[in-house]
Amino acid sequence: MAMAEELSKDAAVEELRVILGGRLSTSSAVREQHGHDESYHANHPPDAVAFANSTEEVAQIVKVCAGHKRPVVPFGTGTSLEGHVAALRGGICIDMTPMNQVIEVNAEDLDCRVQAGVTRKQLNEYLRGTGLFFPIDPGADASLGGMAATRASGTNAVRYGTMRENVMGLTVVLADGRVIRTGGRSRKSAAGYDLTRLFVGSEGTLGVITEVQLRLYGIPEAISSAVCSFSDLQGAVNTVITTIQSGIPIARIEILDEVQMDAINRYSKLNNPVLPALFFEFHGSESGVREQVEMVGGIAGEFGGDDFRWAREQEDRNQLWQARHDAYYAALALRPGSKGWATDVCVPISRLAECLLATKSDIEDSGLLAPIVGHAGDGNFHLCFIIDPDDPDEMRRAEALNERMVMRALDMGGTCTGEHGIGSGKIKFLHAEHGEAVGVMRQLKIALDPDNLMNPGKVVEV
Amino acid sequence: MAMAEELSKDAAVEELRVILGGRLSTSSAVREQHGHDESYHANHPPDAVAFANSTEEVAQIVKVCAGHKRPVVPFGTGTSLEGHVAALRGGICIDMTPMNQVIEVNAEDLDCRVQAGVTRKQLNEYLRGTGLFFPIDPGADASLGGMAATRASGTNAVRYGTMRENVMGLTVVLADGRVIRTGGRSRKSAAGYDLTRLFVGSEGTLGVITEVQLRLYGIPEAISSAVCSFSDLQGAVNTVITTIQSGIPIARIEILDEVQMDAINRYSKLNNPVLPALFFEFHGSESGVREQVEMVGGIAGEFGGDDFRWAREQEDRNQLWQARHDAYYAALALRPGSKGWATDVCVPISRLAECLLATKSDIEDSGLLAPIVGHAGDGNFHLCFIIDPDDPDEMRRAEALNERMVMRALDMGGTCTGEHGIGSGKIKFLHAEHGEAVGVMRQLKIALDPDNLMNPGKVVEV
Repeated sequence: MAMAEELSKDAAVEELRVILGGRLSTSSAVREQHGHDESYHANHPPDAVAFANSTEEVAQIVKVCAGHKRPVVPFGTGTSLEGHVAALRGGICIDMTPMNQVIEVNAEDLDCRVQAGVTRKQLNEYLRGTGLFFPIDPGADASLGGMAATRASGTNAVRYGTMRENVMGLTVVLADGRVIRTGGRSRKSAAGYDLTRLFVGSEGTLGVITEVQLRLYGIPEAISSAVCSFSDLQGAVNTVITTIQSGIPIARIEILDEVQMDAINRYSKLNNPVLPALFFEFHGSESGVREQVEMVGGIAGEFGGDDFRWAREQEDRNQLWQARHDAYYAALALRPGSKGWATDVCVPISRLAECLLATKSDIEDSGLLAPIVGHAGDGNFHLCFIIDPDDPDEMRRAEALNERMVMRALDMGGTCTGEHGIGSGKIKFLHAEHGEAVGVMRQLKIALDPDNLMNPGKVVEV
Repeated sequence: MAMAEELSKDAAVEELRVILGGRLSTSSAVREQHGHDESYHANHPPDAVAFANSTEEVAQIVKVCAGHKRPVVPFGTGTSLEGHVAALRGGICIDMTPMNQVIEVNAEDLDCRVQAGVTRKQLNEYLRGTGLFFPIDPGADASLGGMAATRASGTNAVRYGTMRENVMGLTVVLADGRVIRTGGRSRKSAAGYDLTRLFVGSEGTLGVITEVQLRLYGIPEAISSAVCSFSDLQGAVNTVITTIQSGIPIARIEILDEVQMDAINRYSKLNNPVLPALFFEFHGSESGVREQVEMVGGIAGEFGGDDFRWAREQEDRNQLWQARHDAYYAALALRPGSKGWATDVCVPISRLAECLLATKSDIEDSGLLAPIVGHAGDGNFHLCFIIDPDDPDEMRRAEALNERMVMRALDMGGTCTGEHGIGSGKIKFLHAEHGEAVGVMRQLKIALDPDNLMNPGKVVEV
């Protein structure tokens, strides 16, 4: 690095130190910790980490970075999966975790406003006793700002939608330090361009999300969860497809192959059959849930499912879903010292069986360890390569398999990622999926971030 | 107009005539017909009207216009309400009605793709026999391209969402004639910026929508519709609020004041009591609908509602909802020779009673004829001034009342328009609602349409 750049770099850090004092860190431990997410992607530490307390402070930090042309990388819980938080071009990481206040809960309107660092579990804990909950649940206990930024979803999306449907509005700090509020508290609006949904899923590349207005839901009168095993994966997938095509308003319908079930049994100390399985949850009135259970039970039976194993008490249900949420960590534990490369695609429901079974067959041919787990009701599934990133042969096989799976999903009218996002890991597939529209994404990026300082190297290359 | 401009104007029209032949019209009758929507806004005819047969043809037309720096105004059924289609700066109107093909129906995935000129009723007629339907229903039989462009909703939005939730993808012709496809057929995606939702609600100012991918729904096993009268408006509103807050998955819950009920009785030859009323519809399984009816019936009774008057047969239901959809025309018929100025706001549900009753009181004080009707379950209501636009005093009173209503809604955390859009009529309120964010909308507009040729003078001023 040239001397002039070195000086300019120091100058930015010194300016930030005046603003933040001890809440600016350049220690290598803190920088390393903020240079990677939960995936196999290489660590790219930022030059410094700023712990922000408020929207105003984020705006100040961004303005300093703009003045010195230094990249800005927002950081929540670091649980993303496509290299989203790696500081590929150095710069300042803004750690949002100190912004962990629930700002308001409007129980009678079923909405709330939180600072970006509040996590999904923290919010639901806060809501305890109100009769309300927030349904979106990626595996990790992610921050709601990060979940908005990556358009996260999870097991409840089949009934409640993703962050796209559940973020009502945002506070965003733009690349030049301006602060805007998007959206609002009304259930619908036809007032101007939908900036909320432009920033949801923009992965920090258009601005830093500092506050999120969210929809909430009443806790259903009745909730029932169950696990059902199948002698083959095909039976499980067909049960999902028929359930969705029948319009049954199921709350959760998750698929796990026998490799993932084995991993979960070991990790969460359970003793399910080592067979493909569906995890169900039904929400509604008492009679509504009974009706759904009867219909889905009938469908599962037709496709070779065994009896439902019920989790009737809240505690049992929590255990069941925690085991499901820990699927990634359970898979990693199958091979100590390995890294996870979790990839996901999403296809129209009619193509799910074909896509999933062809992928399963590819995995078997590859000799790789890669459990399958999915939010099958949305046509979305994941596979998680349990790999040694230092083994070039393993990595090559995983890359080839991933590419085959993605291109297959695109051929079927699907998407290269249902919920993990693009980050740096899937940029090459974005053009395959969206063609000329990527040019428009690039125009928007340049319009809002002409110096390419907001999380550069993610989503679109400029 | 200077001679040079006159020549350039003719040159564009002549180029278009080579492409379109008899499908380009400069007759004053056709131009007049395309210079206005259904509202009181003044007629601004385009210089010519191009009837487009395909996306490629739209792209050719837009390129010719770009070459000659001539505005482009897309036109569906002309049923918008805020001056959306007025050619404020002249230019070429593209009439999309010849693009009226349903391109594909994927019944097993509950989606379809249509050309932009297909109307909502045409689509539902096409779907007859498939067991599927498309729920979004603004009053008019609007084109689906126009509905996407204005982020339309209607009576079913409380259960099925608006065009925001139900457009899966688009084909769009950009200002420079490029053609892009946004979105896709999978239920969710985290792949890049959400261009679909950027164009939904952009009112033709960022590009011309030529194809729309839509979600479809299975026709519910059971449907019941009913009307319930209340001795006062407050009882009706409180019934709505309690129903929504109880999380009852009602499909439609519409409010009409006694003035609107009187108008509907006359126009649709019905004999409802001339009292405030709610129109309900319940969708679900047989037992689910019974359960909902019982709960809502109990709530209505508490707030002074009389017995439900049921429309049990399909034909009776169609009559009931056609009467509701004709509310605007019924209101106009109250005063022959008048024009309608339909305005709408949307507020968080907890503020609906206060907002609606204060507006009702304003109307009474104003001496204006202005029935109230609303998609109350969303917190959205309309009032329709039945006015003589040539009477400056009437117009002044209507403007003042509209402004009071909008500013009241904004104070309550609501929006200046729930579903009609901004057009040219509500530009002044967009800044009051979104502040600095309007600057970002302007940046996006300039990025995608640097010469301000796409429906100029609507949504954001450049």
